[in-house]
Amino acid sequence: MTAEIVCVGTEILLGNIVNTNAVYMASGCAEAGMACYYQTVVGDNPERMEEAIKTALGRADIVLINGGLGPTPDDLTTEVAARVFGRKLIMDAGTKEHLIKSVRKYLDTNPLAKFTENNYKMAMVPEGSVLLENANGQAPGIILEDHGKTAILLPGPPNEFRPMFKNQVMPYLMKKSKHAIVSRTVKIVNLGESMVAARIDDLIQSQTNPTIATYAKTGEVHIRITASAGTPDEAEKLLLPLTEEIERRFGNCIFTENEEETLEESCVRLLKERVLTLTTAESCTGGMVASRIVGVAGASDVFLQGLVTYSNEAKKKYLGVNSETLEAHGAVSPETAFEMASHGCKNSGTDVCLATTGIAGPGGGTPEKPVGLVYIACCIGGRTAVKKLNLSGSREKIRTQSAQHALILLHDCILGIADFSAVPDVKGVVK
Amino acid sequence: MTAEIVCVGTEILLGNIVNTNAVYMASGCAEAGMACYYQTVVGDNPERMEEAIKTALGRADIVLINGGLGPTPDDLTTEVAARVFGRKLIMDAGTKEHLIKSVRKYLDTNPLAKFTENNYKMAMVPEGSVLLENANGQAPGIILEDHGKTAILLPGPPNEFRPMFKNQVMPYLMKKSKHAIVSRTVKIVNLGESMVAARIDDLIQSQTNPTIATYAKTGEVHIRITASAGTPDEAEKLLLPLTEEIERRFGNCIFTENEEETLEESCVRLLKERVLTLTTAESCTGGMVASRIVGVAGASDVFLQGLVTYSNEAKKKYLGVNSETLEAHGAVSPETAFEMASHGCKNSGTDVCLATTGIAGPGGGTPEKPVGLVYIACCIGGRTAVKKLNLSGSREKIRTQSAQHALILLHDCILGIADFSAVPDVKGVVK
Repeated sequence: MTAEIVCVGTEILLGNIVNTNAVYMASGCAEAGMACYYQTVVGDNPERMEEAIKTALGRADIVLINGGLGPTPDDLTTEVAARVFGRKLIMDAGTKEHLIKSVRKYLDTNPLAKFTENNYKMAMVPEGSVLLENANGQAPGIILEDHGKTAILLPGPPNEFRPMFKNQVMPYLMKKSKHAIVSRTVKIVNLGESMVAARIDDLIQSQTNPTIATYAKTGEVHIRITASAGTPDEAEKLLLPLTEEIERRFGNCIFTENEEETLEESCVRLLKERVLTLTTAESCTGGMVASRIVGVAGASDVFLQGLVTYSNEAKKKYLGVNSETLEAHGAVSPETAFEMASHGCKNSGTDVCLATTGIAGPGGGTPEKPVGLVYIACCIGGRTAVKKLNLSGSREKIRTQSAQHALILLHDCILGIADFSAVPDVKGVVK
Repeated sequence: MTAEIVCVGTEILLGNIVNTNAVYMASGCAEAGMACYYQTVVGDNPERMEEAIKTALGRADIVLINGGLGPTPDDLTTEVAARVFGRKLIMDAGTKEHLIKSVRKYLDTNPLAKFTENNYKMAMVPEGSVLLENANGQAPGIILEDHGKTAILLPGPPNEFRPMFKNQVMPYLMKKSKHAIVSRTVKIVNLGESMVAARIDDLIQSQTNPTIATYAKTGEVHIRITASAGTPDEAEKLLLPLTEEIERRFGNCIFTENEEETLEESCVRLLKERVLTLTTAESCTGGMVASRIVGVAGASDVFLQGLVTYSNEAKKKYLGVNSETLEAHGAVSPETAFEMASHGCKNSGTDVCLATTGIAGPGGGTPEKPVGLVYIACCIGGRTAVKKLNLSGSREKIRTQSAQHALILLHDCILGIADFSAVPDVKGVVK
């Protein structure tokens, strides 16, 4: 079964907005096991829109048409699609009622807004079509079926489109394709993508169902395992043995198997489980690590304070780094990173202290200490792990990668799998 | 003159990547004054690709074709485009030399990589084509012209595609269309989009050339003025009177007229100009303000430290907030915000201290202090401005908006235009 995507909107053609709805629909089609050979974007012009819809219906079984369902005169998708299917437009009573209700609510909260007859346009739908409820807006989605061809009209605003697609269109596509697809994502740290791929090369080579794919993220590799079957339960059963095999091969390098869980959420979860409190002591990352931790709901149970000690004075005052250390080795050194974490732990009275210091650039580099040289350190239970990073790229990239590696070090320290052989034998250069 | 966009890539059809190259090309076409009626995405399949290219060339004067120029067997764009134009593929000596050089560099730094004959494929180009240099990769861009129709083949990786499009394709399109388009962006804070629009309604209503448009960003409104003329100088001249009129109407609400400059860059620039040092004292934003400041290259001249005082203990220890204040009014109160900024200033010894405290949610709200209640404060020259925010949305959204409003307050305090009528008369509720 094949599908095709037609997006309607002059704002896409003008380059004013990124067509994120297309990627959402495309991955939905792939998940439903539907082949999709073309995507088209066309403007709010009835002739060109009609041509694009006819062409797509000529090639595919199902055409997903996005955008142009609104109340203004240039919203023409419903009218054009009805013409292509030879249907009259009729007023749908339920949609009209929904419209009046939501318009009334809008008028109540926006005293400057006016109700116009235009709004009723959205209740005019092709005769004999199936309507999809729009929980977040006014225009319903519309399914038109004829002679084995289907057109699905969807609203353009992502907050209306996405839930409608996920909750109503996906089940429809799944039913049509008689497929149930279930995925699991295993998230890995401390190994690069090529190393991950090499370790499961045999599984990748022999994949059929489930399929297996690796995705490189900043400082993480995600393995996605996807099984297809007649029912979700059968698909789940297919996933299980492969997932267990991957767990066996990657062990502690896996920080979560929950697609939604981020690395900082894993860290906060681990700290909570072990009843540990945390201080961050950041120089080059400048609050990025703290901000990621604070981004986790409920972080206040474990995170007491973050110290962005950007100047040498601040490193001394707030963390207790020794003047001699700074003078002898400089702010960007394993010795300073070590003291930021270990003295920071004592000074702040928390169980764990995570520190970063480095040269984010673009200025400030020297031949001995180039831009991208970063030291991260983590003190826990009196032991401190220090790690050297040689990073490259923009200031933003170096800072983002430093923060990511700091969180990985925190994760490894909590689990006790970090390398605690400390200064001056700094180990583990990450490029 | 019309243009059309064809993007080649199965990964786009599968929904694995967002088609950001399309929006980049589309806005380029618009800027060059070229009408663009269709965008098409097609996979790495020679028959369908040929059909898509032929269809586009049948409708438009210039077809921009993106992707599929690489070395692997499924990179077929050059071959297909050459066939459509009836050209042979020939080895380009310059490209071959560039290839050998860049492959050698790659092999030197990646000892596990291998050189394969495949790489030479990228030096095979259609006879009589114009080549575009690829400064960041191996495959050159290719321009094919015949019978008034043009195809421009561009590499898919954004870091190769973007500079090539900007530096080589845009001048080509501009020359073809005999248009010069110049834009200026005026960035505004402290006014919502509807207020900005109302204040320039007459200018918007009477716009022809230059055109004028407003864009709402988080806590900012950008006014974009765009003039079109035969030469860049003439376009610049058209921009000037309208820009001056907008400056007159918005005065101090304008924080920059530099498209590239962010709010935090403006703040760091203002602090440098006035030789002021800064401390941040964050609770709910948790390092986000510090991180945005540290993201500015050279921030170390003005930013000495950031204190993420997430717990009450930390607010007392690092900022000198009084226990009595915390007990009487709570951590989220104008009084605490006031002390975080003013005591923080004294404790840290910097000229300015910027503070945030609030309830980011999803938990922790009460009827008196709901989720989204945030106080921000800024102390400068012994005076402290405090502002109350009533925000809504996710934890992430509340934190992002709080950080943005804190930077706006910093900006206003440096310029001396903030409201310094302090606790307990907290003024200015932002929703």
